Amino acid sequence: MARINENYQKLPGSYLFSEIARRTAVYQEAHPEAQLIKMGIGDVTRPLAPAVIEAMHEAVNDLASAETFHGYGPEQGYDFLRSAIAEADFRARGIEIDDDEIFVSDGAKSDCGNIGDILDVNNRVAVCDPVYPVYVDTNAMAGRAGDWDAEAEAWTNIVYMPTTAENGFCPAIPDTPVDVIYLCSPNNPTGTVLTAEQLKVWVDYANEHDVIIMFDAAYERFITEEGVPHSIYEVPGAKTCAIEFRSFSKTAGFTGARCGYTVVPKALVREGQSLNAMWNRRQCTKFNGASYVIQKGAAAVYSEQGAREVEETLAYYRENARVIKEGLSEAGLEVYGAVNSPYVWCRTPGGMGSWDFFNELLEKANVITTPGAGFGPSGEGYIRLTAFGDAEATRTAVERIKNLLAK
Amino acid sequence: MARINENYQKLPGSYLFSEIARRTAVYQEAHPEAQLIKMGIGDVTRPLAPAVIEAMHEAVNDLASAETFHGYGPEQGYDFLRSAIAEADFRARGIEIDDDEIFVSDGAKSDCGNIGDILDVNNRVAVCDPVYPVYVDTNAMAGRAGDWDAEAEAWTNIVYMPTTAENGFCPAIPDTPVDVIYLCSPNNPTGTVLTAEQLKVWVDYANEHDVIIMFDAAYERFITEEGVPHSIYEVPGAKTCAIEFRSFSKTAGFTGARCGYTVVPKALVREGQSLNAMWNRRQCTKFNGASYVIQKGAAAVYSEQGAREVEETLAYYRENARVIKEGLSEAGLEVYGAVNSPYVWCRTPGGMGSWDFFNELLEKANVITTPGAGFGPSGEGYIRLTAFGDAEATRTAVERIKNLLAK
Repeated sequence: MARINENYQKLPGSYLFSEIARRTAVYQEAHPEAQLIKMGIGDVTRPLAPAVIEAMHEAVNDLASAETFHGYGPEQGYDFLRSAIAEADFRARGIEIDDDEIFVSDGAKSDCGNIGDILDVNNRVAVCDPVYPVYVDTNAMAGRAGDWDAEAEAWTNIVYMPTTAENGFCPAIPDTPVDVIYLCSPNNPTGTVLTAEQLKVWVDYANEHDVIIMFDAAYERFITEEGVPHSIYEVPGAKTCAIEFRSFSKTAGFTGARCGYTVVPKALVREGQSLNAMWNRRQCTKFNGASYVIQKGAAAVYSEQGAREVEETLAYYRENARVIKEGLSEAGLEVYGAVNSPYVWCRTPGGMGSWDFFNELLEKANVITTPGAGFGPSGEGYIRLTAFGDAEATRTAVERIKNLLAK
Repeated sequence: MARINENYQKLPGSYLFSEIARRTAVYQEAHPEAQLIKMGIGDVTRPLAPAVIEAMHEAVNDLASAETFHGYGPEQGYDFLRSAIAEADFRARGIEIDDDEIFVSDGAKSDCGNIGDILDVNNRVAVCDPVYPVYVDTNAMAGRAGDWDAEAEAWTNIVYMPTTAENGFCPAIPDTPVDVIYLCSPNNPTGTVLTAEQLKVWVDYANEHDVIIMFDAAYERFITEEGVPHSIYEVPGAKTCAIEFRSFSKTAGFTGARCGYTVVPKALVREGQSLNAMWNRRQCTKFNGASYVIQKGAAAVYSEQGAREVEETLAYYRENARVIKEGLSEAGLEVYGAVNSPYVWCRTPGGMGSWDFFNELLEKANVITTPGAGFGPSGEGYIRLTAFGDAEATRTAVERIKNLLAK
C-alpha cells in the first residue's frame, strides 16, 4: 500500500495571494469602473533587454539546423554561462569563486526548495519573520517544521527570528541551537539590507557551530548604497558556511523566461562531505539543465550592451521605488526599504491591522498591496508595495494614497 | 550543527557514461585517425521543427515589448499548452483526461525525480531490471532504497524485476509486497513494449493493493504497431493507480530546450488524499513554471504544421532503428526493440560480457554503444544502440558491425 508524505497534510492553505485576488475580484465586480493599480505581487513588467532578445533569437536559430543543434546540455549549466557569472558577479568584485561552484538552474525558487534534498530531515531551521514563504513551506514538506500551530500561526519546530523596525531589521542570533539559517538581503518583504558587519556576526556564528546559511540574494542588483554586500562571500569565512541563491528574474526580467543560479563553495563541508559534490549529484540525478535558449539569453546580460540595457531597466524600477518611498513618507507614513530594493515596507497608520489597511487602500485608493501578516506574525502592522509596475501608474497610485491620507 | 542527507554517501559512483567516455577517449587518443560513430547516449541530433522554431521566435518577441511581455506564468503550465496536450495526446485518443490533470515542467527527468517528494520515505519500490537509473538513484537519495550491496550490484530495499528475453521483456508481479512500481513502455533500455493485456495485470494489481504505478511514456511517439497502448490510461482502472510521465525530448527534439509533463489523475487517491492536489502543491511551492518561450514552442508541436514536421523527424529516427535492427539481425545477432522504440537491445554474441562486446565494437568497428550491465544486473549480456544519430553514419556503423562479425 503506497503511503503519502503526511507532512503535506499539515500545510495550512496558501491563502495570501489567493485571498488578495479574491478581495480584489469582489471589489472590482462591485465597482467595474474602478481603475485598480496592482502593487502587490513582485512580478516584473518591463520587457527583456534587446541584447537578451537577440541572443535568444540566435539560440533558437541554433536549434533550427543540425550543424548548430544543441541536445542535452550539462546539468550544471553551460560553461559559457557559469564562467560569465563567476567572472562578472564574483571575481570582478574581488570574490574568488570558481566556475564549478556555480550551478545554473531554471530559477531560484526551484533551488531554494530543492536544496533541502541534500540535508538531513532532523536539522533545526531558523527563518526571519516576516519571510518569503518558500523557505518555510519546503522545509515543512520535508518534515523539518514540526506541526502547524494555527493559533500562533507558526510551525512548532521552526525558529522564527523577528525582523522589524524595533531591531533595525537585523534579527538577533537565536538563543536556541539551530542548524540551518535562511537569510535574505536585500530582504523580501522588508526591502532592508544587512551590512557586512551584521552579516559577519552570522558567518562567525555559522562557522563556530557548523551551521549552514542559506543566503538569498535574488534582489542584489537593487543595491545602490556603498558598503552593502552584494554577496555573502564578501564576508570573510562565508565560503565555509554559506550557500547563495541568485536569480535573473529581478536582475533582468526573467520571471517568465526562467533562469537562476546557486553558488555552493567547494570549501563548504559538513560531516566530512563536500556540499558542492552533493548538490552536483542532486542536480545530475534530478535535473537535466536549464534551457539552452534561456541560458544564451542569460549570458547576454553580461555583454557590454546587455549590462547597459539591464541597468536602464533597473534604474526605471529604482525610480519607482524612490517615488513610492518619498510619496508615502510625505503622506506621513513610516516607510522602510526601497533604497536597495524594489520593495517598500510601510508601517500601517495608527496601529491599523495589515488586512484593514490593505482594504482601505483597495477601496479608497484603488491600490492593491500585500498585507504584511501574510509573510509571518511579525509582518503584522506593515504592508508591502512593489516597484515593478509602470512608472505612470506608480505615480498615480502614490498620489491617490497621499490624497486618501490627507483627508 | 547542520547534518547532511546521509543517503547520498551510499550512492555508488555514476560510472556508466563516464566510463564509456573514458574508454572512448583512451581509444581515440591512441587512434586519432579513427572515425568513431556514437550510438551510446540517447540524445537527439535532428533540428527542431520549423513550426516550433517559429513559435519560439514569436514568444521571444513577446518578451521584447511591455504590451506582450509575460512574467511569472502558472506553475502548472500555461492553459494553452495544458489544454493542447490533454486534447491531442489523450481526449483525441478516447482517453478522458482533464486539462488540470496535466502538469507542464522543464522535463520528465525532473518530474520522475521530484515525484518522490509527495510519497512517504517508507514505501517499498519495485523497478524493472535493466532500468533507467534515475528511478533508482532518486529513491536511494530519498532513503527508500536501503543500502547498496556492491557485490550484488543492487540496493537492499529495492525490488528488482528481471525484464529479459526469457520472460518476453514483461516482468512478473513481485512475490513480495511493494508500494510503488516504476514501469517504462516503450522501454529504456530494452526498446520493448508492454501490451494492453500485460499492463492490465499491473493496473489490477495496483488497484487491489493500493500500489502507485509510475508510468514513464517518454518514448510513446515511437510506437508504430497497432494495439500497443500509448498511455497507461488506455487501460481501464489506470486513473486510480497511475501517474504518467511524458517528454517533448524524444517526441520533438527538446533535449536541450527542456519541456515535459506529468499526468496526475484526480481519481488517484491514497490514504484519503488526492495526489493531484499534492503534486499541485509541490509544484506551486518548489517550481515556478516552465519557460514561456519553451512552452510556446511545445504548443506548436500540436499545430497541423508542427505535427507533420515532428512526424517527419520521428520517421527519420524510426528508419535508423529499422536499419540497425535489420543489419544486426543479418549479422546473426539476437536483436530486440526498435519497432516501437528508438532503442535497439542486442544480445552479445556467444555469451560475451557486455563490456567486452562494447570494447570489441569500439576497437574493431569504431562504434560506441552502451553495455547493458550499466542498466542493472539483468542488463548483462546485452548492449544498447540508439537510433538518434545521422542516417548515413548509422548505416556506416551497421556495415562495420556486419563486416566485423562476418570475420
